[in-house]
Amino acid sequence: MSPKAREALQRAQIVIGYRTYIELIGELLEGKKIISTGMRDEIKRVNRALDEAMAGQKVALVSGGDSGVYGMAGLVLEMAAQRNIDIAWLKDKKEGNSDVLLEIIAGIPAFTAAASLLGAPLMHDFASVSLSDLLTPWEVIQNRIEKAAQGDFVIILYNPKSKKRNWQLSSAKEIILKYRKPETPAGIVFSAMREGQKVNISTLSNMDSHDVDMQTIIIVGNSTTFQSGDFMITPRGYLEKYK
Amino acid sequence: MSPKAREALQRAQIVIGYRTYIELIGELLEGKKIISTGMRDEIKRVNRALDEAMAGQKVALVSGGDSGVYGMAGLVLEMAAQRNIDIAWLKDKKEGNSDVLLEIIAGIPAFTAAASLLGAPLMHDFASVSLSDLLTPWEVIQNRIEKAAQGDFVIILYNPKSKKRNWQLSSAKEIILKYRKPETPAGIVFSAMREGQKVNISTLSNMDSHDVDMQTIIIVGNSTTFQSGDFMITPRGYLEKYK
Repeated sequence: MSPKAREALQRAQIVIGYRTYIELIGELLEGKKIISTGMRDEIKRVNRALDEAMAGQKVALVSGGDSGVYGMAGLVLEMAAQRNIDIAWLKDKKEGNSDVLLEIIAGIPAFTAAASLLGAPLMHDFASVSLSDLLTPWEVIQNRIEKAAQGDFVIILYNPKSKKRNWQLSSAKEIILKYRKPETPAGIVFSAMREGQKVNISTLSNMDSHDVDMQTIIIVGNSTTFQSGDFMITPRGYLEKYK
Repeated sequence: MSPKAREALQRAQIVIGYRTYIELIGELLEGKKIISTGMRDEIKRVNRALDEAMAGQKVALVSGGDSGVYGMAGLVLEMAAQRNIDIAWLKDKKEGNSDVLLEIIAGIPAFTAAASLLGAPLMHDFASVSLSDLLTPWEVIQNRIEKAAQGDFVIILYNPKSKKRNWQLSSAKEIILKYRKPETPAGIVFSAMREGQKVNISTLSNMDSHDVDMQTIIIVGNSTTFQSGDFMITPRGYLEKYK
């Protein structure tokens, strides 16, 4: 957690978040009003945060990783637009003119935390795709995986599997295999930087034989990525100029 | 800077980095040996860091943003492999068996810092492309921009322009314009979270008319990205299920 996030929590009167995240920051929450809800209650949490902020409260809405990467920041702005709430940047200090003043605090995204545990897989261009087809049609996801593979991007896969979604990862694998060797390194990181963390360097062809879930990030190397010891490395150049 | 990075700096006896970054963390460096060099001396810095580590020194090699995202982490591993240095993860505590023990510390990448200043442009799948053709042939870069545009990824452009490279951004714009509307929001962030920071929400068709340089990150929205007030927003779903 960045010092800036910690400061924002200290300033907050109310802290709202998904139960698991609230538990992770328990020691910072003393004396504050806590509103924690279950996994699929994002809309409820955001509306509650907006309501409390409009009532004059200082609210911190907590996200895992970076709030701006598949996180809650966007939902706050979407719901504010939908509800016609006048929202402005806190830094602009338009207090009095706006209903809600907002600050978005960047964090360490789960995929860069995962990368730091694998070695250096993100030294070159990368594309991130969420395999969750709850809010995105599978055809859109499928097309993205195909284009990312064609572009020789390092590919980050978010939400590879859940209890109800069990075939998407194997399907993604088949698409990428059309363009990359089966032995391409694929890093699998479960629960990066949290309790129960597991790190594994596998291959593209085996990546769907591991135990993965919604807490897992998979990073598939590009055509130049290699494994050296316990490290997964994507060279920074295609020209190898520095040799 | 994360507390983990700060701790690592405290433990270090020698701190090595690009001059500008060393200056940014001046107050943390008291009593340490400092080795700072110019912009194109990456290889020299890495070799020096490896040499000092092999001599038994505790070395911190400093990167801007996240050391794993177009940063120095990969170069350390590449040079160690090239020099046949036996390198292992610090956590494995193989002291005595390995020449060098390494820890890679994730940070806040420049592009998520930039995103947090623009609103929430990264709520959906994104692709990051560096426009620097110093170590990558332009055909590879061009193909990536094309595929990222075809995949309707939010597109992050690193290194849009330098003194010697002045046409790549306009060329990238032309490629993306084949697939996206000219009025697609494009966020331009100069020197995110540092002195002189500038934030601008422009459009795809105008993004190359701004003053940009190597400190600038550009984020081009996907087909659903919109601007609302001073915020750039990519909706999290294509299905708009929650409405």
